[in-house]
Amino acid sequence: MTDPLAEYRQVARDLAVDAVALVPGPNFNRAFQKPFMSHERPFVAVIPAQGAPAAIVPNLELGSWALVDFDGAVFDWRDQDGYAAAFDALAQHMPLSSLAVEGQVMRVFVHHALKQAMPELKIVDGEKAISGLRIVKTPQDIDALQAAIDVSERALKRVLDGVRVGQTEKQIEQALIQSLFAEGAEDQAFAPIVAAGDNSARPHAKARADYHVKRGDALLFDFGARKHGFAADITRTVFVADVSDEGRDVYQTVLNANLKGFEVTRAGVTAHDIDDAVTGVLEASPYADRIRTKTGHGLGRDVHEAPYIMRGNAQVMQAGMVYTNEPGLYDLGNFGVRIEDDVLVTETGCRSLTSFPKELMIVGR
Amino acid sequence: MTDPLAEYRQVARDLAVDAVALVPGPNFNRAFQKPFMSHERPFVAVIPAQGAPAAIVPNLELGSWALVDFDGAVFDWRDQDGYAAAFDALAQHMPLSSLAVEGQVMRVFVHHALKQAMPELKIVDGEKAISGLRIVKTPQDIDALQAAIDVSERALKRVLDGVRVGQTEKQIEQALIQSLFAEGAEDQAFAPIVAAGDNSARPHAKARADYHVKRGDALLFDFGARKHGFAADITRTVFVADVSDEGRDVYQTVLNANLKGFEVTRAGVTAHDIDDAVTGVLEASPYADRIRTKTGHGLGRDVHEAPYIMRGNAQVMQAGMVYTNEPGLYDLGNFGVRIEDDVLVTETGCRSLTSFPKELMIVGR
Repeated sequence: MTDPLAEYRQVARDLAVDAVALVPGPNFNRAFQKPFMSHERPFVAVIPAQGAPAAIVPNLELGSWALVDFDGAVFDWRDQDGYAAAFDALAQHMPLSSLAVEGQVMRVFVHHALKQAMPELKIVDGEKAISGLRIVKTPQDIDALQAAIDVSERALKRVLDGVRVGQTEKQIEQALIQSLFAEGAEDQAFAPIVAAGDNSARPHAKARADYHVKRGDALLFDFGARKHGFAADITRTVFVADVSDEGRDVYQTVLNANLKGFEVTRAGVTAHDIDDAVTGVLEASPYADRIRTKTGHGLGRDVHEAPYIMRGNAQVMQAGMVYTNEPGLYDLGNFGVRIEDDVLVTETGCRSLTSFPKELMIVGR
Repeated sequence: MTDPLAEYRQVARDLAVDAVALVPGPNFNRAFQKPFMSHERPFVAVIPAQGAPAAIVPNLELGSWALVDFDGAVFDWRDQDGYAAAFDALAQHMPLSSLAVEGQVMRVFVHHALKQAMPELKIVDGEKAISGLRIVKTPQDIDALQAAIDVSERALKRVLDGVRVGQTEKQIEQALIQSLFAEGAEDQAFAPIVAAGDNSARPHAKARADYHVKRGDALLFDFGARKHGFAADITRTVFVADVSDEGRDVYQTVLNANLKGFEVTRAGVTAHDIDDAVTGVLEASPYADRIRTKTGHGLGRDVHEAPYIMRGNAQVMQAGMVYTNEPGLYDLGNFGVRIEDDVLVTETGCRSLTSFPKELMIVGR
């Protein structure tokens, strides 16, 4: 009989800590195969290097937790009693001197509750190793990602067909969201970016209710559906009714950089190598001063996860990794262009999971 | 000229710490009046008891941060360089010995980055005091909540009209989500619960793609739209095509408890008093063993925030607080019923912001 938590135990050994703690989020949901939500109640599974695991479970989650295959002690707690006693009981049951946690997921109140119950506990950030367990995708993971991407691309097509001069960013954003769900999204992977004109130059722009898209605007969509627990993340930048020579030239530069990413990606190169090649294209252009971001990031259960595709990251790419190839050029006060594909690394090269056209597209005319 | 951050400075003084730190989330967005997202990049504003604030800002957020009215030092950092230097620069610029953070919002990696730069820094959980600043809603807050609730109720009406025996929970959930956006939601306040039959007894149930609702099922909807940064949170439980005597009796019991909450709520009573009265109705019924949750929680920019309506909470209710009145009875393996209204406390009593009918409703016939 295989131990479903064996790989987490191995992480504890690798990090030389007594145990690994997981809280609701992508790793937790992967480990326990159910979508638990993060909320104001501490909910922690502790997986020791050796021996049975234990969990602190909010009482009202016991019904859902009963569906999980978990062979360990459960310390539940009720709102009216508070959670301190459950942490004390855990400390009694499984005395720990060191613990690796997910630094990007666990919040400070849980950290404090652990320290309260075990003042000498050494808490280390094991994010990289824990989330590293899902850095190489399984065939099932790829299928789920592909499903999320397919939904997203159908939604984008629908929305682009409806764009007209004079619509607000907010209207277009709402059309995108509705299309995502109409096409079968289980959720949005993240709050989408729909940004036109000068707003397209802000990498994390918010759609404005008072900005009406106008002839010549760049119009940037960065969005994705969630499906089967996995997130799509796609960006396309189109132009509204018309495009300036500058727009055309910037677009082609970004596209060249994106294509360069496909050219250099294969198992064995590093994340640094990919970013260096992609960003190198932008740097060699007349628009080098418009670079504001790295090439991209890993994609899976989280929208942003390892491997981060940036210079200095010596991470060797392996077959089965998926990353976003998303070069962009951003001229604050003017406009921005980003093109983002979701790329599966293979032994001999790579394959784009996104297939939405990348030729310069003029919409709404 | 008033200091927009004065109340955060006051929190620092009240907690006897040097400063308060905010990270993207409800308090941050309230303080800076822009919707920043939480992501893998540290982004922290530090507001000292006295003197100018400072912020650590990811470089790619500088464009959005420039729109914020912030009169303090900004330490930005780029992905390729990492963020340690920005934290060191903050430590140099504003040496701190103690800092209050939002325990429910800040994640451990930011906690660790702060400790790395300032090893002697004492970090305290200031969640209660910091989020306490938004516990009493302004008239604008109430308008936003009402808008979110109105959208949600229109969506529910639409969905209930379409429920039929044989649909899956997942289908009904998807119809609900699409209706929310069609009715004008900016986002979902949280992943909705659509749970029928035995699933309705799980307080945090997930919609199943393989469960077809059948005659006699309880069908529970717990959901809400987000609008103008505020979250609705509504639950209605209906029955599909038919209702058993037990279903009818349990429903009436829960409704009586919910109505009791309205009866006892006014400025001056405590959160304990409200829960005690509401839960007391359930306890006096034949279904006391089906109680699994407290009465409710505060509602605003967060779906779950103070005041928590539970026994033992001595929080005095004040005019302008909004809470969810959501008693429920859950019989695992059988069915559950919950009725949830969003209640505004007034000087002399209270007013429901939700107005969706609460009479026992039989749908899909």
